[in-house]
Amino acid sequence: MSKNYLSLPITRVVKNKVSQENDNVVQEVPITIFLNDKEFVTLLCSPQYLKELAVGFLCSEGILLDPSDLYHLSVNEEEGIINVRAAAGQAEKQFMKRYITSCCGRGRSSFYFINDARSMSKVNNSIRITPQQIWKLTTKLEEKSALFRQTGGVHNAALCTPDEVILFFEDIGRHNAVDKINGYCFLNNIELQDKIMVFSGRISSEILIKVAKMKIPIIVSRSAPTVLAVNMAKELGITVVGFARGNRLNIYTNPQRIAV
Amino acid sequence: MSKNYLSLPITRVVKNKVSQENDNVVQEVPITIFLNDKEFVTLLCSPQYLKELAVGFLCSEGILLDPSDLYHLSVNEEEGIINVRAAAGQAEKQFMKRYITSCCGRGRSSFYFINDARSMSKVNNSIRITPQQIWKLTTKLEEKSALFRQTGGVHNAALCTPDEVILFFEDIGRHNAVDKINGYCFLNNIELQDKIMVFSGRISSEILIKVAKMKIPIIVSRSAPTVLAVNMAKELGITVVGFARGNRLNIYTNPQRIAV
Repeated sequence: MSKNYLSLPITRVVKNKVSQENDNVVQEVPITIFLNDKEFVTLLCSPQYLKELAVGFLCSEGILLDPSDLYHLSVNEEEGIINVRAAAGQAEKQFMKRYITSCCGRGRSSFYFINDARSMSKVNNSIRITPQQIWKLTTKLEEKSALFRQTGGVHNAALCTPDEVILFFEDIGRHNAVDKINGYCFLNNIELQDKIMVFSGRISSEILIKVAKMKIPIIVSRSAPTVLAVNMAKELGITVVGFARGNRLNIYTNPQRIAV
Repeated sequence: MSKNYLSLPITRVVKNKVSQENDNVVQEVPITIFLNDKEFVTLLCSPQYLKELAVGFLCSEGILLDPSDLYHLSVNEEEGIINVRAAAGQAEKQFMKRYITSCCGRGRSSFYFINDARSMSKVNNSIRITPQQIWKLTTKLEEKSALFRQTGGVHNAALCTPDEVILFFEDIGRHNAVDKINGYCFLNNIELQDKIMVFSGRISSEILIKVAKMKIPIIVSRSAPTVLAVNMAKELGITVVGFARGNRLNIYTNPQRIAV
């Protein structure tokens, strides 16, 4: 497995002091997914858990719906290529269509993509968590973020029960960290509907859509949500908690799941 | 012009204290660009300077090369639609091709996209700046970041001379803030080759490519670069300065432009 960072020579300046040093710089690699022998997408990511990333991305895009849909997957780390054989068909065509018309962004109303709207339904799970439990989880996440402390360049995402971090991924891409969780759970049959996503980055509409498709009822971030994400979360029954740091947090939607 | 944020009702928890308050939450809007009557791309962005965003994005993608290429542009803010008439032709087809094969990411080697490699050349400008001048600029940027302080949700990018901030844009998308600078300069004939880009976000390969296409010789960030961006900057002759905060900074490439 590739290292997440490289040591590079830099010139460091502190006040009037100039020194030649080595600094850990975070890796960024382009990975191209081939689906059924066709070039499908290229993602820029941290070079770990590439299998989980590819599977999670394909789940999030509606290509993989059930473990039986995945026939074969091979990772060529050196060339940055992942070959996937899967039961695709309709979803594959929709993906291409969506990305031709709306690449790197989404449509115009709250449910901007027909494909997304069709594949999402309201999350009804009644799991509850206290603010104290949330702060314990965010503290654990910060302790685990060794890479961030080394390079200052990655986001992390964790899948948690109210009391434990059960999965943790770091990536230079906010979306990739979430996709890696999705992929790992798909490959290992881990139930998502009673879990909490704890996330380091901003909760944008694209992150909210991924969480909604995973049917995760609560997303917690140390950062801010956007208005669009908040509006979607309301419609989808997802609890959004932002600015969860130290002993503070803001509940933006569906506060019934936070036991205050 | 739409506001960059909305006041939304939230539940705030601080230790054991629970209160119902209003909080400023950052806006995120989907904007679809139609190029010569064809749906071209949808961007998620802050709802300001949409004209500059569209023009900057089209510059960055090689669609607009010269002011005479732009025939007409109209913004329908309410519907989130921008109509552009421009001399496109070959570049338009290349964009579609690139985005079909590599949406939301890029290829596999340092110069992963043929289109990008073709449109970039080495930056030779010999502009110099001192660390003290850099720290003055980053301090000014922080003072200007009122929206960030209100919502915690945006990135900013500034175009500077060694002594002054001459342009400043904020956006929920890192790429958009840079595209808005590019668009403004294209529309107002502002020279870029003797300027410095000061940026709040991580310097990824995609940001570096945008800066390289603008021929800006120095990019400064309060955050970290990636290894891929550092490697590209070396090849392209661009100076990368990271972690520029307070009285510290790291020079990753082409240190000859930093007068220490």
